[in-house]
Amino acid sequence: MGVLDECYNVGIENGVSVGSVAIEDAVRVLLLGLGEDINREGLRKTPLRVAKALRDGTRGYHQNVKDIVSGALFPESGLESCVGSAGGAGGLVIVRDLDLFSYCESCLLPFQVKCHVGYIPSGQRVVGLSKLSRVAEVFAKRLQDPQRLANEICAALQHSIRPTGVAVVLQCSHIHFPNFQTALFDPNHQGCVKLSVMSGSGAFDDEKASIWTDFLGLLRFRGLTAEDAHSRGSLDKSWCPSRTICKMAASDPSLLAAVSSILYALGEDPLREDLVDTPARFVNWLMNFKNSNVDMKLNGFVRGSKRETSLTPPRDFSHICSELNLPFWSQCEHHLLPFHGVVHIGYYSSSRVISNVGKSLLQSVVQFYGFKLQVQERLTRQVAEVASSILGEDVIVVVEASHTCMISRGIEKLGSSTATIAVLGRFSTDPTARAKFLQIIPSSA
Amino acid sequence: MGVLDECYNVGIENGVSVGSVAIEDAVRVLLLGLGEDINREGLRKTPLRVAKALRDGTRGYHQNVKDIVSGALFPESGLESCVGSAGGAGGLVIVRDLDLFSYCESCLLPFQVKCHVGYIPSGQRVVGLSKLSRVAEVFAKRLQDPQRLANEICAALQHSIRPTGVAVVLQCSHIHFPNFQTALFDPNHQGCVKLSVMSGSGAFDDEKASIWTDFLGLLRFRGLTAEDAHSRGSLDKSWCPSRTICKMAASDPSLLAAVSSILYALGEDPLREDLVDTPARFVNWLMNFKNSNVDMKLNGFVRGSKRETSLTPPRDFSHICSELNLPFWSQCEHHLLPFHGVVHIGYYSSSRVISNVGKSLLQSVVQFYGFKLQVQERLTRQVAEVASSILGEDVIVVVEASHTCMISRGIEKLGSSTATIAVLGRFSTDPTARAKFLQIIPSSA
Repeated sequence: MGVLDECYNVGIENGVSVGSVAIEDAVRVLLLGLGEDINREGLRKTPLRVAKALRDGTRGYHQNVKDIVSGALFPESGLESCVGSAGGAGGLVIVRDLDLFSYCESCLLPFQVKCHVGYIPSGQRVVGLSKLSRVAEVFAKRLQDPQRLANEICAALQHSIRPTGVAVVLQCSHIHFPNFQTALFDPNHQGCVKLSVMSGSGAFDDEKASIWTDFLGLLRFRGLTAEDAHSRGSLDKSWCPSRTICKMAASDPSLLAAVSSILYALGEDPLREDLVDTPARFVNWLMNFKNSNVDMKLNGFVRGSKRETSLTPPRDFSHICSELNLPFWSQCEHHLLPFHGVVHIGYYSSSRVISNVGKSLLQSVVQFYGFKLQVQERLTRQVAEVASSILGEDVIVVVEASHTCMISRGIEKLGSSTATIAVLGRFSTDPTARAKFLQIIPSSA
Repeated sequence: MGVLDECYNVGIENGVSVGSVAIEDAVRVLLLGLGEDINREGLRKTPLRVAKALRDGTRGYHQNVKDIVSGALFPESGLESCVGSAGGAGGLVIVRDLDLFSYCESCLLPFQVKCHVGYIPSGQRVVGLSKLSRVAEVFAKRLQDPQRLANEICAALQHSIRPTGVAVVLQCSHIHFPNFQTALFDPNHQGCVKLSVMSGSGAFDDEKASIWTDFLGLLRFRGLTAEDAHSRGSLDKSWCPSRTICKMAASDPSLLAAVSSILYALGEDPLREDLVDTPARFVNWLMNFKNSNVDMKLNGFVRGSKRETSLTPPRDFSHICSELNLPFWSQCEHHLLPFHGVVHIGYYSSSRVISNVGKSLLQSVVQFYGFKLQVQERLTRQVAEVASSILGEDVIVVVEASHTCMISRGIEKLGSSTATIAVLGRFSTDPTARAKFLQIIPSSA
């Protein structure tokens, strides 16, 4: 079966560095397209970091399932077939809740996968449990679509272990795809797009087979039936939010060419049907974070706001006002990957000052500073500075975020989050005021 | 500071293979000590696997913090110091909930760490967020004690980033340490030993400083004060359950020497104070899983039980009886690492048959088959076979387990679990009966 033996080596034909250099060049083109100075400190090594991370994140193209499974098949006797089944002679073996990361072939952003794999041993042999995870990883580390990922994991295990059957269920989450226009006016435009898919072979070929009931029973997806996942998987080819954006801005051909060269360097065929529009989608997403756009609009905006709210009344220290959970989206300038989260702003002020208009003003400030290449530390400082020009000198800003680069690339620290804080005026000198405000922030746990 | 520049290379002085061969030899000695046939299929490559995993799990001895941090310090302007602090000029930056694994220097078993790191940038520079995680990883991948781990991460970050201050909070969980005698009579002898520790430098030197309040506020450990963690950390040197076992069996000197040679091969000094008793503790733990012990006792036991319960009444198919959540401990024969979990047993029988005596009998069977070198598939089959000799021919057995080898070594799939199933008699032919039983099992989520 081709899926096992294929090994795209285009990118490393002339040594690993060829592909990496091509990716680095392409990233430089994209950064220029974003209106950035590619020589500024924070961006100087970004092409290198992106190339390294992308190659690592798609290393599955160069891995072979046979190498992984061979040597990890162990003889194990089963129950006599006349009495029932277990272990080597038929009992179902399942590994649940494997966390994987993959790259969406539609938009090149990472998506997260909760993977459940099961198989029914035959021929009196079982496979080392960790191999199920390693094989799944081989196919996750490629540009993927959820249903194809499930199918490839399933086929590879069926082919390499030759068991009575293999079942794969994937629960996928794709980062949402805000765009500059809609996100500004819809602060709730957050969260993830979710999709569950299944794939089965051998005894699991028939999705109505009772073995699927056993499998799902052991997964405890009591709400999810085989029909649900299958139909959702096959119907919803366009799960990627980038595919639902009706109107894409026309993109600079040099940017599109840059993304195509990245696809090629990774070992993919940029002309493959599902990849043809990927460069346009990725560029469309990336250009939301174009530098000049944001600065221009913000300057006019904040100057106006400042005038409007300059009549700040005398400070009232009796209680802290707060605007909590203002959502933002941004793009990490070190990795060209999204990070998103919420901003909490605290201040001392008479309650009359901040009406609903004020809240939407703060939300706009947060989003303005989000929509560019950023680091969280700078975002925190910038929001604090502008907030103090609106709310008075005593301001505290806390930013909580999940960084795609922390969870999908390299270190893969799922569940980690970052918090940054900026304190101005009274909040910088009064620990009690800080502590009070931190108590107000609702726990995200 | 020595902690940064030290790089134990003992094990690789003459090439990587020297240390690995020593570990493989030592593992063979331990397997023989367990009464195992080192040539049987499941164990043949165990020495290789253990050596590979141990070297990977202690790779921190060969890593250098300077290499990691250099090139990841970015200039970032802060707020003017007269108005407050943020970003490059003082605002706190925190990365929360990093999952790490380390090895307990007292007993050589892995322990799990939820790591929270914060620092206050100074000199107008911030460090790439992922570097905080990578530095923590360098020290986690060694033989460790929680407080020392926190101190080393803290000192390394302070030294390499030179910020205004560094704070580290670790929430550690150590697998419990059952022993054959107590576990048999205490089925609840499960779960983890937990310990929280903190370490601070620079502005965090004073554990009463208000910056600690900010840090803990952002961590949302509203119950945990600086005093709590510090005092627990310093007082409770003996958090490892192996240290609380009063009486250790005298061990074969050749086994102790084997473990000492593993310590040496990893680059440690077996004579270091905290490691002196480690070989004895590890051997004591391992010998709980000695092969001959278990078989001898079990044979007598089950033969007796069989006689006692052979008067099975006529089968009553009206309802399924079940014994759920019978805990077990076992040792993965592929990696010499613990796996533990619960067994669920279902059967058709008159309710009179299984009294409390019956439940404790099943619990004993489960534990007997657990306390040896195992694979989960075999454990499932063995329990099913013996259970059917006690409960009649219609038996279903589900085993749910967490494998230390799946979460701490190599693939590091935290949160993953495995489920295996064996079906006998009616349960092998009647999907509805299986589905019914699977519905009874309480969700572990």
